[in-house]
Amino acid sequence: MTIRYPNGKVYVSPKETTNTPKAPKKQTTYSNRGMTLEEYLNETNEYYRSKGVACVHKKPTPVQIVHVEYPRRSAAVIKEAYFKQASTTDYNGVYKGKYIDFEAKETRNKTSFPLQNFHVHQIEHMKEIIHHDGIAFVIIKFTTLDEVYLLEAVHLLHFWKRYEHGGRKSITKAELEEVGHPIKLGYQPRIPYLNILDTLYFS
Amino acid sequence: MTIRYPNGKVYVSPKETTNTPKAPKKQTTYSNRGMTLEEYLNETNEYYRSKGVACVHKKPTPVQIVHVEYPRRSAAVIKEAYFKQASTTDYNGVYKGKYIDFEAKETRNKTSFPLQNFHVHQIEHMKEIIHHDGIAFVIIKFTTLDEVYLLEAVHLLHFWKRYEHGGRKSITKAELEEVGHPIKLGYQPRIPYLNILDTLYFS
Repeated sequence: MTIRYPNGKVYVSPKETTNTPKAPKKQTTYSNRGMTLEEYLNETNEYYRSKGVACVHKKPTPVQIVHVEYPRRSAAVIKEAYFKQASTTDYNGVYKGKYIDFEAKETRNKTSFPLQNFHVHQIEHMKEIIHHDGIAFVIIKFTTLDEVYLLEAVHLLHFWKRYEHGGRKSITKAELEEVGHPIKLGYQPRIPYLNILDTLYFS
Repeated sequence: MTIRYPNGKVYVSPKETTNTPKAPKKQTTYSNRGMTLEEYLNETNEYYRSKGVACVHKKPTPVQIVHVEYPRRSAAVIKEAYFKQASTTDYNGVYKGKYIDFEAKETRNKTSFPLQNFHVHQIEHMKEIIHHDGIAFVIIKFTTLDEVYLLEAVHLLHFWKRYEHGGRKSITKAELEEVGHPIKLGYQPRIPYLNILDTLYFS
């Protein structure tokens, strides 16, 4: 059943907007030949790894395994399992000795990015990373505009705090343009986010 | 079927010795009230996190999801999935701004640690981490002796290379005592491995 907001926009539950993989199904075609932000980032990280630039991986989706069968002569089959909520962000790794950590989210909105895309756990995790002097940020893609921004976690935490104090539930695009950093999409790598980190932390 | 080495020792396939979770089953009782190395390390990392010392997590077990069902009014159920081989090590995180990365393995052997406990992927991953100036190591537990060692990846790579060149398939305990670092087990934290890193990298 499709649920709509009063403004007519289709409601997408927060669960659906996370990077949790679904059962194999036909890829919805977005712009850019149907690649999702996750696929772009996987390609990007693979490129960075192959060139010896950085080692960054997406963490596997956390799954609670309940029942496994062990057929003779073949691999163990998980017969019952459930998706668990991640307690951290999705991507982490090492760049120039520093710990880097980020979450990637896409939205079909054009004028703002809804904060409901993040879980409290992820926000707390980003606070920890900052506390330990790691580099924490988010990569946000406006799919319908084909625009990608890198937003340092310290700014995300500011917007989150405003929301917790009764303020708006989203980051406006104008705000993102002001404190975030646009990433110019490329071919190799697709999303050259390390260029932004070079400017911010390594120059 | 139990397969034995010529020396009579039971063969355990590399798959079984990895940290891949099995179906829920009765916990084998080892020493120390039946806690596995993984459980010790989870407690240790939780302690370090709660005290604001470091942020280190175990990565979720990678699973290839094949079929998911979506029952009405309840959570999605994964009905068919398979364990995938991990392409990285199991633990990573940030300590004093630095990227740290390790794998943990236990053995019931008393005189040596078999290198077959590691996959080529993990060895390659550790090489990458060193290349990027991260801190890579392994934590090895001799369960029957209740002894734990931290071995820097650079030494593991040396033993691995010896093995690839036709040398022995294991690290002798004497070698581990020589180039590794014993970790004195405690209560809080259980396995204070950061003490070793302090001595090696932060003093």
